[in-house]
Amino acid sequence: MHCTIGVCQMTVVDSAEENLKKAETMIGEAAQKGADLVVLPEMFICPYEHTAFRREAQPEGGEVYQTLSRIAKEWNIYLVAGSVPELDGEAIYNTSYVFDPHGHLIGKHRKIHLFDIDVPGKIQFFESDTLTAGDQMTVVDTVFGKIGVAICFDIRFSELFREMAVAGAHVVVVPAAFNETTGPVHWELTFRMRAVDQQFFMVGCAPALNSDADYHSWGHSLVVNPWGEVLSGLKREEGIILQTVDLREVGEIRGRLPIMKEYLHH
Amino acid sequence: MHCTIGVCQMTVVDSAEENLKKAETMIGEAAQKGADLVVLPEMFICPYEHTAFRREAQPEGGEVYQTLSRIAKEWNIYLVAGSVPELDGEAIYNTSYVFDPHGHLIGKHRKIHLFDIDVPGKIQFFESDTLTAGDQMTVVDTVFGKIGVAICFDIRFSELFREMAVAGAHVVVVPAAFNETTGPVHWELTFRMRAVDQQFFMVGCAPALNSDADYHSWGHSLVVNPWGEVLSGLKREEGIILQTVDLREVGEIRGRLPIMKEYLHH
Repeated sequence: MHCTIGVCQMTVVDSAEENLKKAETMIGEAAQKGADLVVLPEMFICPYEHTAFRREAQPEGGEVYQTLSRIAKEWNIYLVAGSVPELDGEAIYNTSYVFDPHGHLIGKHRKIHLFDIDVPGKIQFFESDTLTAGDQMTVVDTVFGKIGVAICFDIRFSELFREMAVAGAHVVVVPAAFNETTGPVHWELTFRMRAVDQQFFMVGCAPALNSDADYHSWGHSLVVNPWGEVLSGLKREEGIILQTVDLREVGEIRGRLPIMKEYLHH
Repeated sequence: MHCTIGVCQMTVVDSAEENLKKAETMIGEAAQKGADLVVLPEMFICPYEHTAFRREAQPEGGEVYQTLSRIAKEWNIYLVAGSVPELDGEAIYNTSYVFDPHGHLIGKHRKIHLFDIDVPGKIQFFESDTLTAGDQMTVVDTVFGKIGVAICFDIRFSELFREMAVAGAHVVVVPAAFNETTGPVHWELTFRMRAVDQQFFMVGCAPALNSDADYHSWGHSLVVNPWGEVLSGLKREEGIILQTVDLREVGEIRGRLPIMKEYLHH
């Protein structure tokens, strides 16, 4: 079965209203060009800063959520709505809502592995100062089959991707925002290797580089096939990937190299 | 602590005697140039063919084993002796013997994941037609710390590498022989990613390309640091890598990005 994936590498600015407007414009463009599934970046609603996480946090069902649901319905698409800060009691999660073409929530992923990094002289950031970690793997059902969702630093943990493959995911979508230290060395490598190990498609969606922001996103949104080849990739500027994939390739590749055979029993 | 690793990408021909002689020469050269740990390729003793596996299979302690033990002792090195077909009753294993500088066996790894591949029109090979699979992870103690050993297709299973990291390995050595189908897409990618995921050093040692052989080895022996960077790498011709690594980098990298923190409790 074929599925056209739209990956919106949008520039995130310091205004939730503008970011939401930009997201809607780019989703519309992807949908008009035939996307069945559209993806937004991690924290597309606000700058990647602790104060912004706190300021923009809304509970599930809040205004931003409602807008995203409406957009999915209006364009009749599956929407992996990047991520936003989700307020739940006192806790703030880094959460990706997933809507079906009716605008119904079919899953939400709370980032499990928070991003704490300390590279002297280059980058220090401790997500765990503000955010609370999720503890659930996320695989949703779609007419295209099962799709897994993970967020950024989650990608560094191979076990989670094995779990999603065993749960039946044939595509895993990862809203993310690597930086200038880890991006050049680890970004493409990691997406390609998760695809090769699990023999499924990988989709990465990052914010474009905004030089005015404190956090310089590496961008480089991409779609990788189950053989580990990059089918489409952007640089750091704003842009949209439209990539049609044939999901039957998952079965073909698993027939060539019996890696997943040891884990799948169906 | 510093350790100089010698990686012998030797040409394997259709004579066990010649192969053993070549191995001894290259080990001697690496040792003379300062190697503390020397590595040979997968199935360095014979062509990568079922009939050769059967013909050259010897029990542990056999002639080839004795020669390798003597060489390790003479040159006063740790030797990860690539792999050879090991006869145990009726079964033949793809086995890597590991000797210390006294020539004592300190571990042996029997390839766990046999290589079965079926890429129509490109390559078909079913190791499981001849070989029996091992079922044990292998991590040995050395004066340089713990070193893990895996063989070729084993590298495709992330869980094994996580186990070795949790068991304390700071270097994992993989005698291997990728081919022209999987090599260009997956070889370097996989070594780099296992290093990034486990935050340890990875060493790959393959046979050089022998165009006269049925199986065309991809070569490309390499040493990768815990940040996923290739420190040294060969092409497909015969040659030796001599790479000094500082094993303290393992701890440094684990401090930068707390990936292994979730798995290590010491």
